[in-house]
Amino acid sequence: MNKNYIIPNEWSIIEEGFDAENVEASESLFSIGNGAMGQRANFEEDYSGKTFQGSYIGGIYYPDKTRVGWWKNGYPEYFAKVLNAPNWIGIHIQINATTFDLNVCKISNFKRELNMKEGWLGRSFNATLPTGEEIEVQAKRFISVKYNEVGAIEYAIKAINFSGEITFSPYIDAGIENEDANYDEFFWETLKIVEGTHQGCILAKTLKTEFHVATAMEIDFAVNGNQVLPTHITTIEEKELTYTYKVKVAKGDTATIYKYASYVSSLNYEKADLIDASFKNVSEAKNIGFKQLFQDQKESWATIWETADIIIEGDIKAQQGIRFNIFQLNQTYMGTDARLNIGPKGFTGEKYGGSTYWDTEAYCIPFYMATKDASVAKNLLLYRYNQLDKAIENAAKLGFKNGAALYPMVTMNGEECHNEWEITFEEIHRNGAMVYGIYNYVNFTQDFEYVVSNGLEVMIAIARFWHQRANWSEAKQQYVILGVTGPNEYENNINNNFYTNYLAKWCIEYTIDCLNKVKHNYPNDFDRILKKTNLSIEETYKWMKVSDAMYFPFSEEHNVYLQQDGFLDKEIIPVSELPKSERPINQKWSWDRILRSCYIKQADVLQGMFFFEDKFDKEVVERHFDFYEPLTVHESSLSPCVHSILAASIDRMPKAYEQYLRTARLDLDDYNHEVHEGCHITSMAGTWMSVVQGFGGMRVWENGVLVFNPQIPAEWKSYSFTINFRGNVLKVYKSQTDCKFRNESEKELKLIVNNKEILIPANQLITV
Amino acid sequence: MNKNYIIPNEWSIIEEGFDAENVEASESLFSIGNGAMGQRANFEEDYSGKTFQGSYIGGIYYPDKTRVGWWKNGYPEYFAKVLNAPNWIGIHIQINATTFDLNVCKISNFKRELNMKEGWLGRSFNATLPTGEEIEVQAKRFISVKYNEVGAIEYAIKAINFSGEITFSPYIDAGIENEDANYDEFFWETLKIVEGTHQGCILAKTLKTEFHVATAMEIDFAVNGNQVLPTHITTIEEKELTYTYKVKVAKGDTATIYKYASYVSSLNYEKADLIDASFKNVSEAKNIGFKQLFQDQKESWATIWETADIIIEGDIKAQQGIRFNIFQLNQTYMGTDARLNIGPKGFTGEKYGGSTYWDTEAYCIPFYMATKDASVAKNLLLYRYNQLDKAIENAAKLGFKNGAALYPMVTMNGEECHNEWEITFEEIHRNGAMVYGIYNYVNFTQDFEYVVSNGLEVMIAIARFWHQRANWSEAKQQYVILGVTGPNEYENNINNNFYTNYLAKWCIEYTIDCLNKVKHNYPNDFDRILKKTNLSIEETYKWMKVSDAMYFPFSEEHNVYLQQDGFLDKEIIPVSELPKSERPINQKWSWDRILRSCYIKQADVLQGMFFFEDKFDKEVVERHFDFYEPLTVHESSLSPCVHSILAASIDRMPKAYEQYLRTARLDLDDYNHEVHEGCHITSMAGTWMSVVQGFGGMRVWENGVLVFNPQIPAEWKSYSFTINFRGNVLKVYKSQTDCKFRNESEKELKLIVNNKEILIPANQLITV
Repeated sequence: MNKNYIIPNEWSIIEEGFDAENVEASESLFSIGNGAMGQRANFEEDYSGKTFQGSYIGGIYYPDKTRVGWWKNGYPEYFAKVLNAPNWIGIHIQINATTFDLNVCKISNFKRELNMKEGWLGRSFNATLPTGEEIEVQAKRFISVKYNEVGAIEYAIKAINFSGEITFSPYIDAGIENEDANYDEFFWETLKIVEGTHQGCILAKTLKTEFHVATAMEIDFAVNGNQVLPTHITTIEEKELTYTYKVKVAKGDTATIYKYASYVSSLNYEKADLIDASFKNVSEAKNIGFKQLFQDQKESWATIWETADIIIEGDIKAQQGIRFNIFQLNQTYMGTDARLNIGPKGFTGEKYGGSTYWDTEAYCIPFYMATKDASVAKNLLLYRYNQLDKAIENAAKLGFKNGAALYPMVTMNGEECHNEWEITFEEIHRNGAMVYGIYNYVNFTQDFEYVVSNGLEVMIAIARFWHQRANWSEAKQQYVILGVTGPNEYENNINNNFYTNYLAKWCIEYTIDCLNKVKHNYPNDFDRILKKTNLSIEETYKWMKVSDAMYFPFSEEHNVYLQQDGFLDKEIIPVSELPKSERPINQKWSWDRILRSCYIKQADVLQGMFFFEDKFDKEVVERHFDFYEPLTVHESSLSPCVHSILAASIDRMPKAYEQYLRTARLDLDDYNHEVHEGCHITSMAGTWMSVVQGFGGMRVWENGVLVFNPQIPAEWKSYSFTINFRGNVLKVYKSQTDCKFRNESEKELKLIVNNKEILIPANQLITV
Repeated sequence: MNKNYIIPNEWSIIEEGFDAENVEASESLFSIGNGAMGQRANFEEDYSGKTFQGSYIGGIYYPDKTRVGWWKNGYPEYFAKVLNAPNWIGIHIQINATTFDLNVCKISNFKRELNMKEGWLGRSFNATLPTGEEIEVQAKRFISVKYNEVGAIEYAIKAINFSGEITFSPYIDAGIENEDANYDEFFWETLKIVEGTHQGCILAKTLKTEFHVATAMEIDFAVNGNQVLPTHITTIEEKELTYTYKVKVAKGDTATIYKYASYVSSLNYEKADLIDASFKNVSEAKNIGFKQLFQDQKESWATIWETADIIIEGDIKAQQGIRFNIFQLNQTYMGTDARLNIGPKGFTGEKYGGSTYWDTEAYCIPFYMATKDASVAKNLLLYRYNQLDKAIENAAKLGFKNGAALYPMVTMNGEECHNEWEITFEEIHRNGAMVYGIYNYVNFTQDFEYVVSNGLEVMIAIARFWHQRANWSEAKQQYVILGVTGPNEYENNINNNFYTNYLAKWCIEYTIDCLNKVKHNYPNDFDRILKKTNLSIEETYKWMKVSDAMYFPFSEEHNVYLQQDGFLDKEIIPVSELPKSERPINQKWSWDRILRSCYIKQADVLQGMFFFEDKFDKEVVERHFDFYEPLTVHESSLSPCVHSILAASIDRMPKAYEQYLRTARLDLDDYNHEVHEGCHITSMAGTWMSVVQGFGGMRVWENGVLVFNPQIPAEWKSYSFTINFRGNVLKVYKSQTDCKFRNESEKELKLIVNNKEILIPANQLITV
């Protein structure tokens, strides 16, 4: 695998020159999507080299039978998987009688571009076939943001040195598999193949989950820019529909095929209507035409960038990296559908099976909240609200009672999809993130109504969980939480993880705060919620016993909270003294050795201080940072951003920048040798946070005030970002010398910048 | 499954009446074996009902590809499995033209018997076929102890109500599978099928391990007791050889087939010689004849019982139970081959894949040591000695250096066969059992030469492991052992397990004791061993630093050692307050709940006090027993025996008897609803210990003196057992009133009985 082959560019991801070794990595990096569907950047034409095929539809999943070495009570039997969906991009191509396959051609001028500004994927190259014909190809494709069930391809072939026949055989194919299927089974059944004139459709359903999906295509042609439409021969195989068109070309002619495609699913339609709906979509797309669809696409993305862009001057690779992250986050989740969420690989790969982790609440919500309308973050909260019953069921399976909820570690539909006991059953801090997400949202948006309408029910169920999960220690005369795994997954089954205990205490306290607020301000709702949840005031007193007497491991000697009981029994040797040959430890060491070492996979105590920064003095944060950062190996992509933000907050910009670099181009530079499996979508939100909350020092205080403390890495000339703060667009600019704020809204905005209150009138720029 | 269907009998396991529901359980319970090979009590004739087929050859295994949900560094890729071997018992039978199949017959007078005194399995019954023919069947089979590659079957059919033809089609079949194959693969390849006159053989090899096995049969017939030998038709299929004999019978005639069979393997022969060897075995067997082979078998078992029997008067079920345990232990392991060991299921099933656990050293050695020649226990020790290199390799894989050894949790050939990280990597106390086994053997036999010739090398490698595995705790200013699982597997990844820390300290100290003894008494060997192991005296000083400053968790409040750090943070609720509906907790609770509960699967601190009873005052043992016994759920078959022995040692016979009952008839009464999978062989040794060490109070003090403190459960009239003490046979008899010792050797024996020294002259009985 060649690393660092991506050409730096402000707005595009670019690959130049064809190298078969890079195909799978590029298929991940150049992925396209629109939040509702997405796909890897597989070639349209046949390719006999190594490739990882993937096209995905948000919300369409399959419960694959679990593969477990040693069964434990409470494990789920099924593991909901992101599903590779029917292929709609495929076009078999023959030049005269020879199949066109890049793997066997002589290739020149190869260029692949993912244009992030406009939201499309393109390829251009010259290829000489083994039989001598040279062609020039210009291919472009996108998945429409405006028409979110539609994708379109323009694929042009110029006959460079021959006259003859080009055969285009566009097809749709439901005979697809998941690479990560546990038992190599097919997940789809083809129900119907419908032929039309230049139009065709396959109706297929997922096994078990019974999602029905219609995949349609419609074909158009031009030769030298003039529309032509040759007749086609239809081939219907068991799971595949192919139309074969033969186009005569003279030397120098360009034959262009347009393929309009659509996915529609039973998530959004009656099953009986799917075929018609898909045909309607492709007909309309064809009528609108590629050119206009493309124009629409540019406009959609322009709108997205208006409130999401970050501009970095003086470091083109940093500029490309941050835009790539923002672009991929938007491709993965647009926020219009509360049934969807943000999978760790988005629409770029299959790995990590289920789609939703605590990453959403801990890392992604801040990004969507600050770059989009409040309804987007709210939809992410509603996703969990809608799965509350399943979380209660899940907790009941593990022995919890009385409506206590434990949200799953990994899920598609609310059911747990993970089966490593130390994670599934023990990484319960995720439950706290659910409440933190609500808190964060309410703080940012001041939309307390959400607590009243939905949030409080979630919070009550989670408070119940913590109350039951903690137990009184006679020895300590305090409440303890035993047998957990914290965010640092390099410790398992530990007692009194500081982060978990802190979240548990905080969840109960915040729930009681909210209960009190609702009681006073929404008495009718208060009654309704108490009734619905069967909650009594007496029960909340019991919760408070736990939160009031929660135990936290603390070292007098080091004057720091300990990650867990017994942490100081370990040999404490800083990461800097670990030989390079032993890293990453998760590849070099056996698991027991990792567990008994002092090394931290991902921010844990520091994650807590990041969440609740206002509860800890700067000196306290500094002391903990100095204690834990040297022991942290950051072998999770979600770790460096937190350390970067904390470092910035304690005025250590070089450290902050060092940590920022570890996430910013994680995929583009393929640090972990795994980008071929897909991109790390959720950690991209962490990168955004590193800039906005880290360097920009953005916070929203509990009183609702927006705060900035902008700093800039020495390596940059300037950076600027945009925030959508309660519907008001604010642009922040920071250079080595200047700091400016532009209020682009129609309302005066009050900010605190570098601890001073400032007022920015509507539509004004001020320099601080 | 019908429980308690076994008819009580002093010397036999008996089933009366046919119930298809019991077939698989009986296949386990009525298993036969001779230490070198064994098999489940499958029917010879075809059976279309539910059955679990199994025939096993000691030392013949297959490395099945591991099935793991989530891979951890250091896991083995293969899991050596006990192999179901070619079928040699099968005889297809037709009565006239109808296949005889018990599953479709009307059956009366069904009786199955496992005669433990004489070592054979029998069946008798009348069956009426759907076509009306009634037959009476008398079948008998055994695996010869004297000729340990040979098995024999006598199968007689009497024509009750018809005259006609009986077709016998004896066969051998290498087309067999393992039920627990991870990927449903065949493990055997058939190499050659050799036809002879009434003789036949299949040469097959195991894939990957390339063990070659020849399975031969030779057939003989009698009608009404007179030898006849009809001609046969041969059928050779891909993996199967069948001879078909047609025998004419008149009403009232009895046709009897004799099938002599043999397994020979490349463990004991050149591969080229196997076919001849197997033919030689069956020819000889046929020449000796069934009657004489049967007589030899009775004599072999009489000899075994002479030094192994336990007689219980006044409780026939207890009598049957203890003999069943002794019988199965002898069927599993005879001690003549240091390449073999004692699998947890012996030759009665497949489960638990690999064959050797720490069960051997902790539970089985005492039985074999006291009922057989010293060479038997020594062979068990040599098994580990011969695998020392692999144990050193295993430790190196996990990051240990300098010749440190970690013996595997489960093994066939010295390689680790387990992959649950909390066990594979963390249940390291097993390493201590290896040394304890040596200590126990040397103590009992006074054969210190074994330490010199072999044991010390093992001990040095293990001392090195403990030295490296412990680490200095700055916080405690003592050495700690972090991240372990103790014998109580209901705790994982705990710190400072008392049992593990104690064993570690003891192993180092005992190794240094032995080193000193060897230095003074065997100076040449001392030099040889130091050179071979590259050991310096300086290195042993480092070990001693660890053993001298080992930390043990202790509660001042309760005045007991704690099972591990943090144990008292748990809610301590005695098992007696657990609702019955929640037990066994390993079936009713999720794993996390078990882990954070105070419940103990199997003796842990108490296991340590059992091993090192002489290091703890009786009051100390009592205090710990009173603390831990109420928290122990005994969900391991290896637990109650230890509690029983300790209870007896602190004069609590009712408790001792209660615990005894939990192991004594575990399989016969199928307490755990799993006997169909096979019997719990290794825990049977624990039952033996409960009688001899528990009720009998047998100990061997470190000065080599044999000690007894006989007590008797109120429920029994008397019991007696036999001990082979350094070649001297001693019988111990205890009734409610009397206690007698008979010295059956030619040497005066010195004993301590109830704290008084007594001398028993040669061949004398004395009453105490």
